[in-house]
Amino acid sequence: MNEPTQRIVDPDALRGFMFRLLAAAGCTEEAADAGAESLYEAELRGYGTHGLLRLPSMVLRIRSGMINTRAKVQVAMEREGSALVDADRSLGVVGALFGADLAIRKAKRAGCCAVGVLNGNHISMAGFYAEKIARAGCVGMITTVTTPLAHVLGGKERLLGTNPLAIAVPSGGDDPILVDFATTAISFGTVLKSRARGEAIPEGVALGPDGEPTTDAAQAARGALTPLAAHKGYGLSLVLGLLAGPLLGAKVGGELARSIAEKNHYDKGDLLIAIDPASFGDPAAFGEAVRAHLLEVTSSPLAPGFSEIRIPGERSFRERALRLKEGVPIEEGVWKEAAALAGELGVAVPE
Amino acid sequence: MNEPTQRIVDPDALRGFMFRLLAAAGCTEEAADAGAESLYEAELRGYGTHGLLRLPSMVLRIRSGMINTRAKVQVAMEREGSALVDADRSLGVVGALFGADLAIRKAKRAGCCAVGVLNGNHISMAGFYAEKIARAGCVGMITTVTTPLAHVLGGKERLLGTNPLAIAVPSGGDDPILVDFATTAISFGTVLKSRARGEAIPEGVALGPDGEPTTDAAQAARGALTPLAAHKGYGLSLVLGLLAGPLLGAKVGGELARSIAEKNHYDKGDLLIAIDPASFGDPAAFGEAVRAHLLEVTSSPLAPGFSEIRIPGERSFRERALRLKEGVPIEEGVWKEAAALAGELGVAVPE
Repeated sequence: MNEPTQRIVDPDALRGFMFRLLAAAGCTEEAADAGAESLYEAELRGYGTHGLLRLPSMVLRIRSGMINTRAKVQVAMEREGSALVDADRSLGVVGALFGADLAIRKAKRAGCCAVGVLNGNHISMAGFYAEKIARAGCVGMITTVTTPLAHVLGGKERLLGTNPLAIAVPSGGDDPILVDFATTAISFGTVLKSRARGEAIPEGVALGPDGEPTTDAAQAARGALTPLAAHKGYGLSLVLGLLAGPLLGAKVGGELARSIAEKNHYDKGDLLIAIDPASFGDPAAFGEAVRAHLLEVTSSPLAPGFSEIRIPGERSFRERALRLKEGVPIEEGVWKEAAALAGELGVAVPE
Repeated sequence: MNEPTQRIVDPDALRGFMFRLLAAAGCTEEAADAGAESLYEAELRGYGTHGLLRLPSMVLRIRSGMINTRAKVQVAMEREGSALVDADRSLGVVGALFGADLAIRKAKRAGCCAVGVLNGNHISMAGFYAEKIARAGCVGMITTVTTPLAHVLGGKERLLGTNPLAIAVPSGGDDPILVDFATTAISFGTVLKSRARGEAIPEGVALGPDGEPTTDAAQAARGALTPLAAHKGYGLSLVLGLLAGPLLGAKVGGELARSIAEKNHYDKGDLLIAIDPASFGDPAAFGEAVRAHLLEVTSSPLAPGFSEIRIPGERSFRERALRLKEGVPIEEGVWKEAAALAGELGVAVPE
């Protein structure tokens, strides 16, 4: 099959379009702005799977009542270095941003703070929040638990989420170092895209419904994703699911899937941790030491076949700068779906 | 070559032997006990690379002054949810245990606590400390930075440590869930063992000195280990090295290697985080939810070729129970080296 055609959209126009769609669907100005920002930042960084593509399903969830557009996000429990936030079924980004801001403020007093967010919704890119924390000067970590898509080591049934882990570290330069990965060997979005294109997926990244490893994307889409790096990714995914689920009073595994199916409630959690570098010394000296190590890393003699060494996050920041200048490529199929939604909601589609 | 022969040693006798060796080398009773416990627990769990094998190099480091047997471990900086510990060049386990205890006590008040340990030494198994924190009822996380052994993505020079990450979660049962892995695709110990046995290493886990991927253990031993899971492990290793190094005022990369070579000082750090489940609700309910998910996990339909599903950490706890009953197998070469050291130090060797 052919590569789907794309159109180039002006960044400001794209963000405005996203905002108006969310506002027309009933979001408050603040929620629509936060939602648009997270989708827009995903598109700028080249993560189309977390961009405009997601907007129609957000609107469906608003209509079904899973997402509450009149939510009042509140702190439910609080100690010096921790807090539990009740997101009141708000748009995912709203609860998680509330949690990130709280984690930053509390970490700057207590040194470190762990914030759990309950009763939120899909938070899109985990790295978005880790980056916010790092840009405020703290080390940021975040994990979240998703509905089951991956098998456990030795099992063939979907029991683990793709449970991403994102860590961002202030770099002493313009952009933080940003690590953000799912704990599966491949994303479900990539499987679906490969299936749509009739392409194979790599070996060792998924099982078919029979539990046998498969490179057939259609089989994988009906089977289960494999955790990254065998027992290491299995273990990491399992514990992250427990930290973003049961630790916060939320669900995980089959119970999480049932909370959506039976109660139309995405009963998962998000765990955000902020650490203030001032707790351990002079943040400026930390920044200098980080810069020195990054210089050493990017100056490493190259292995055969490589032309440069990139710092984690660098590719997406470069892409962001490029797209801000040259526009954002959006797949036609994604655009058409958003335009159809705009028609329904009475929102003008950008030229 | 043949598998090296082993002897079976009584667990109590082994621990006592380790204690007497460390005490004879100048450690205080408390330090010798902590050091022996960590080596002994590694042997019980089947991690010989972190057991008796390490004792002679510890003694060498005591003799060279890298490890200070009269160290006074102290808190250098402290906030409600953080602390920086100056380990005063004590035996690695002493500083890290001090840090773990402090993290637990402070997390139980503040909800979460991040403790940095500076001026420590090699801490052996990272999981040892995460497990201590979990057995005290908190979620435990720890990372540490090691001297460079791994290349960055695209590079061929050693710049990253094996920087392990360990996370332990109270399970609501007897043993915690314990994830503990190096961020390299293979451990350096495995490379050295394969070289000694004339065995190949798997594909994709190391580069030779020329920067080309190799399965020749001798080439790999002179080259660099590959981070696990490509860019994911590279990113994770890089940020963990920054968190256990520069964030705490310690070194990373080439500077860390030089601190040993030039100053005989292992100028790295350890970062320990404890989170108190009571910060987010009822710890008993958390335990129940964890147990329910673990039951779901171990009850998963099996994939072809598997006969059971194990919880992370379970293998090592089973091995521990077995070795406590049946004795600890120690490789003859390791035993002889320890016995020779005992001769020098005037310590009786167990029968």
